[in-house]
Amino acid sequence: MTKNHIVKAFDEELGELTTLIGSMGSLAAMLFDEAVQALSQSNIGMALNVIVQDQQIDALKRKVTDRAALVITRRQPVAGDLDEILAGFKIIEDLERIGDLAKNIAKRATVIAGEPFPLDIAEDVERLSGLASTQVRQGLDAYVSRNVEQALIIRQQDVAIDKLHTALFKKILARMTEDHAHVAGFVHLLFCVKNIERVGDHAANIAEAACLVATGVLPADERLAHDGSSTTPPDIGSRDHS
Amino acid sequence: MTKNHIVKAFDEELGELTTLIGSMGSLAAMLFDEAVQALSQSNIGMALNVIVQDQQIDALKRKVTDRAALVITRRQPVAGDLDEILAGFKIIEDLERIGDLAKNIAKRATVIAGEPFPLDIAEDVERLSGLASTQVRQGLDAYVSRNVEQALIIRQQDVAIDKLHTALFKKILARMTEDHAHVAGFVHLLFCVKNIERVGDHAANIAEAACLVATGVLPADERLAHDGSSTTPPDIGSRDHS
Repeated sequence: MTKNHIVKAFDEELGELTTLIGSMGSLAAMLFDEAVQALSQSNIGMALNVIVQDQQIDALKRKVTDRAALVITRRQPVAGDLDEILAGFKIIEDLERIGDLAKNIAKRATVIAGEPFPLDIAEDVERLSGLASTQVRQGLDAYVSRNVEQALIIRQQDVAIDKLHTALFKKILARMTEDHAHVAGFVHLLFCVKNIERVGDHAANIAEAACLVATGVLPADERLAHDGSSTTPPDIGSRDHS
Repeated sequence: MTKNHIVKAFDEELGELTTLIGSMGSLAAMLFDEAVQALSQSNIGMALNVIVQDQQIDALKRKVTDRAALVITRRQPVAGDLDEILAGFKIIEDLERIGDLAKNIAKRATVIAGEPFPLDIAEDVERLSGLASTQVRQGLDAYVSRNVEQALIIRQQDVAIDKLHTALFKKILARMTEDHAHVAGFVHLLFCVKNIERVGDHAANIAEAACLVATGVLPADERLAHDGSSTTPPDIGSRDHS
């Protein structure tokens, strides 16, 4: 969608906002990848680096907020232009949360670095986080390039993350009932995989905001949640081994 | 802070927005209370009611979003008025999340209704959720009444929730290492108390937005996180009993 305003500077300001949000998104996605890597490789140094760098995301968010408010004040946008700026406000909230979730994974990585991390679970964590990371990057691409088709696809793909998360949640729960000595370590791991699943939700939110920017409306159909981890029955451990 | 615009209808529109956000907040706080009650009383009917009612929060959010965008388009606000509307956008994101967290607690309440809920832990959950609920309501009051002193106090009180949550997290972890038969039930309970702690975070966010509306700037000092549950060492169970 190409728009041309009478005041060309306005187009440039909107473009700058998009670029700034794109940079904030790249940083959030990178910190998320590093947090998961720190977890899977028990790399405490990398984890501490993620914790420190999260502040940069918060700083970028403040910068985007101030810049966007200035554009509204200066240009008094309406209709599609206003939607575009308001969608930007939504996206930076999601990106800030991705940064927070990465930081939380990194914190937990530091305390469970010495705990057992069964190979099959590690492989699933890698697969889950790979999907979530890809979703975030593609959601941002769809926003930056105003690609509504891509945005709609990404929004739907969250289902795969939800399903994999539910399966992994059950697998870890089952393992906890066998390995009593490491219950607390597995609890931290459960919270990490929940965080990864939440990153997928935020990617879907970004994709929705990208739709709003490209078309002026949110997708018509309701987004359905497929994460069944909250309703996994408490006898799952014994049932899975019966 | 009393403002009088040349166009009196503008004041009325801003007032209506605040009232609408206040109503959304009351509903979110009520659903949160009911979700915790459903959990502590194993009341599945109440839990299912929360799950259904969360849709009303989402509908109210869409209404506020549309109304706020209309006010911006019609009145082209600048400075304090624009801040006020943008703060409203932030608050409804927090309220939507409180609704989501209530729904998640309610879902988990339905699956652990038959699980053990030790009295000391139940009392702590009640205390924690009571604090969080009060914070949400007082944060909203501070926003609606533009009371910056109250907002600053609420923002700081989140520390008490964080500390109580960390202690409760450790207590539940320690119980899990003793009671292997109910590990999965306790996992759901851990996620519920984490959700309650998150509601406290959102209350603090609302208080910050209230400061922004009342003063035009966010509080100068950094808000410190005191939730130590993420960095609770995995040997906590054995250490607490050594």
